[in-house]
Amino acid sequence: MGVNIAKNSKKRIVIIGGGFGGLEIARRLVKLNYQVVLIDKNNYHQFQPLFYQVATSGLEPSSIVFPFRKNFQRKKNFHFRLTEVIEVDADRNCVLTSLGEVSYDYLVIAAGAGNNFFGNERIEKYALPMKSIVESLNLRNIILERFEAALSIEDNESLLRLVIAGGGPTGVELAGTLAEMKKYILPKDYPELDFDKMQIILVEGSDHVLSAMSEKSSIKAMNYLKKLGVQVKTGTRVSDYDGDEIVLNDNSTIQAKTLVWAAGIRGNFLKGIHESDLGRGNRIIVDGYNRLKNSPNVFAIGDVSIIHTDEYPNGHPQLAQVAIQQGKQLAKNFKKKLKGKSLVKFHYKDLGTMATIGRNKAVVELPKFKFYGFFAWLVWMTIHLRSILGIKNKFLIFMNWVWSYFTYNLSLRLIIKRSDQKKVGTER
Amino acid sequence: MGVNIAKNSKKRIVIIGGGFGGLEIARRLVKLNYQVVLIDKNNYHQFQPLFYQVATSGLEPSSIVFPFRKNFQRKKNFHFRLTEVIEVDADRNCVLTSLGEVSYDYLVIAAGAGNNFFGNERIEKYALPMKSIVESLNLRNIILERFEAALSIEDNESLLRLVIAGGGPTGVELAGTLAEMKKYILPKDYPELDFDKMQIILVEGSDHVLSAMSEKSSIKAMNYLKKLGVQVKTGTRVSDYDGDEIVLNDNSTIQAKTLVWAAGIRGNFLKGIHESDLGRGNRIIVDGYNRLKNSPNVFAIGDVSIIHTDEYPNGHPQLAQVAIQQGKQLAKNFKKKLKGKSLVKFHYKDLGTMATIGRNKAVVELPKFKFYGFFAWLVWMTIHLRSILGIKNKFLIFMNWVWSYFTYNLSLRLIIKRSDQKKVGTER
Repeated sequence: MGVNIAKNSKKRIVIIGGGFGGLEIARRLVKLNYQVVLIDKNNYHQFQPLFYQVATSGLEPSSIVFPFRKNFQRKKNFHFRLTEVIEVDADRNCVLTSLGEVSYDYLVIAAGAGNNFFGNERIEKYALPMKSIVESLNLRNIILERFEAALSIEDNESLLRLVIAGGGPTGVELAGTLAEMKKYILPKDYPELDFDKMQIILVEGSDHVLSAMSEKSSIKAMNYLKKLGVQVKTGTRVSDYDGDEIVLNDNSTIQAKTLVWAAGIRGNFLKGIHESDLGRGNRIIVDGYNRLKNSPNVFAIGDVSIIHTDEYPNGHPQLAQVAIQQGKQLAKNFKKKLKGKSLVKFHYKDLGTMATIGRNKAVVELPKFKFYGFFAWLVWMTIHLRSILGIKNKFLIFMNWVWSYFTYNLSLRLIIKRSDQKKVGTER
Repeated sequence: MGVNIAKNSKKRIVIIGGGFGGLEIARRLVKLNYQVVLIDKNNYHQFQPLFYQVATSGLEPSSIVFPFRKNFQRKKNFHFRLTEVIEVDADRNCVLTSLGEVSYDYLVIAAGAGNNFFGNERIEKYALPMKSIVESLNLRNIILERFEAALSIEDNESLLRLVIAGGGPTGVELAGTLAEMKKYILPKDYPELDFDKMQIILVEGSDHVLSAMSEKSSIKAMNYLKKLGVQVKTGTRVSDYDGDEIVLNDNSTIQAKTLVWAAGIRGNFLKGIHESDLGRGNRIIVDGYNRLKNSPNVFAIGDVSIIHTDEYPNGHPQLAQVAIQQGKQLAKNFKKKLKGKSLVKFHYKDLGTMATIGRNKAVVELPKFKFYGFFAWLVWMTIHLRSILGIKNKFLIFMNWVWSYFTYNLSLRLIIKRSDQKKVGTER
């Protein structure tokens, strides 16, 4: 037993993580004269920007996740291994995984970021995150179960109150979609429930939702949310939660059985990375070439990394676009390396940011101008469709969106839970 | 807390189980002057005939399961409860569920059938069943994990050997689809594996696969399977399995990490049903009106029931069509009851049986004639599309089939497992 990949004459590049950054660089490197090994604990790439639609029964998981093997079919220089990284051993140029050791000539860490509960273990235990397809499906199940449970109790306000911590794009998009479900779908499914009792509360620590955008866009988004009936509490943080009662930083409380956590992320921890290499938010400090300080053949890209530049003294924003552009630049540098050319530093090209709040409602900020409403919503849809992998996925998502738009109704409100998984004689 | 459904002037009919029979009768009864309560442990109806396509990454679960609430939107006489039945108390006319008690004027038991391991606990522990969408998804995950695991071991024959116990439609259709995956898809996904080592073995106790069909059709199906490279062992039973080694009834053994169990079903056990009411295969004995002997207001339909008639002395076959027709007839009898008319006995109209073995290959037996091959395959697809609930599901499945037909490739080969489900403060 082992990772079992024969070395050949090519230099081997091991990539940890197949998110936006890892997938981008892998797709480019397989065309070059390297042996590429991609390691991920899942056998699929996840399209994070649409997790909230899975959590709200709008899209099927398979529409927004994509098996790696399909993407690299018949590629001889490419090896995927479904395994977890236990430790990076930069001194010995190898990665220890649950399948065994895999050695590398170059290592690219693209391990991404996970939920940040800021050290509060109670929140971590009871709040519901949405940083993976599995967590999003779990959230879908739990939201639906809340309504089922509310049927059996008279005093069901706390079951019908959904609180979202974090007013970034994830929190805003989730709150907007839940508000639309309340308006168009849920009362038809649950004629026995009183939906006046259903509350959607969005809690944001800073003064604005979508605080990374301009004030104008933030206010626009907030107005959209309020119009949909979402209660927005800015300048407010969740400081504790026991599964029943949310405590806010002003010591007021909210009774709610459901708290969705979209309030912070931190770089995924990798054993073997020195404390001195870690910066803000647990991100691995790299230079302009995405290289680690004392390990010239180890690189980090995307959410897990941080480059301090004059333009971005606190690092680039943790966005898909940054990860993709870093993956692209690093792949180009690997190509230059083969040709003996000198490397080029990463430069982030801001393509803009956007968020959708509901039907016909979105805010889009391009570098040169901003726009809102129906046209922004169309742009949001087009860009997301373009970015998703696979023609079939594009088509399925498009069909789903068109269907929901005209019928106000999807048939994905399914509580599908795994039973205890049988693991018959697996070696893994 | 409780089931919490107010009684009204209407008689209440409680239906246990929303499979083919339970759903059919519920859809008809909501149109009549009854209060209808449907109880199921899932919030969705499952289209069993296509489970094998979920297990082989051909269809998404959401294409073949359908939320009950969507089907009964805005129906005032209808109440769905997501709960498990603990016991039937026919003396007190009530059903005890995990949510509390629910009383009835009439009870319809449509609890279906589950896997029958014939008392062998080791087989039950290690073999993989496919009688629910959850089990089918679990099977999909495990099949894919076997190939991932096979990459790490030299001696991987036993990981690449898939054995299916039971040569009914489920076993035959699964074997055929796996053989096609071996031929068209898997070698592209796993260029590092030697697929000559991959074996698909179908084990059937009787002399023929599809033994409920005519000998001609059975032989046709067997030839299709053999052509696809499936090893068919008829007259053979699995007598034991420890997760590594299958023991057959002739004491020969097969080393295989994966044994799929499609070799038998039995009526789902309901506490409170008297031993004397249970017949062959744990089925509840009912008269021609689907009534239990000593409880004139308790009925059983579908796989969980058995009617002994002259034509079917051992009961009707456990097929979707029987359940649907019984649901239909019983609903008609409830209508007659309202009008004081006399009841009509159930009479099964055999509409025929069919099975598909792979691309362009199916066997179809209609009451008057049989046919095979490409045309049978088209008929198989048409009938299944017609039977599935929901226009969107029909369309999605059709698209998936067309796509797979021309591309030989789907993107559903995803190992999506639930993490430990957080159950924050649910009352259920």
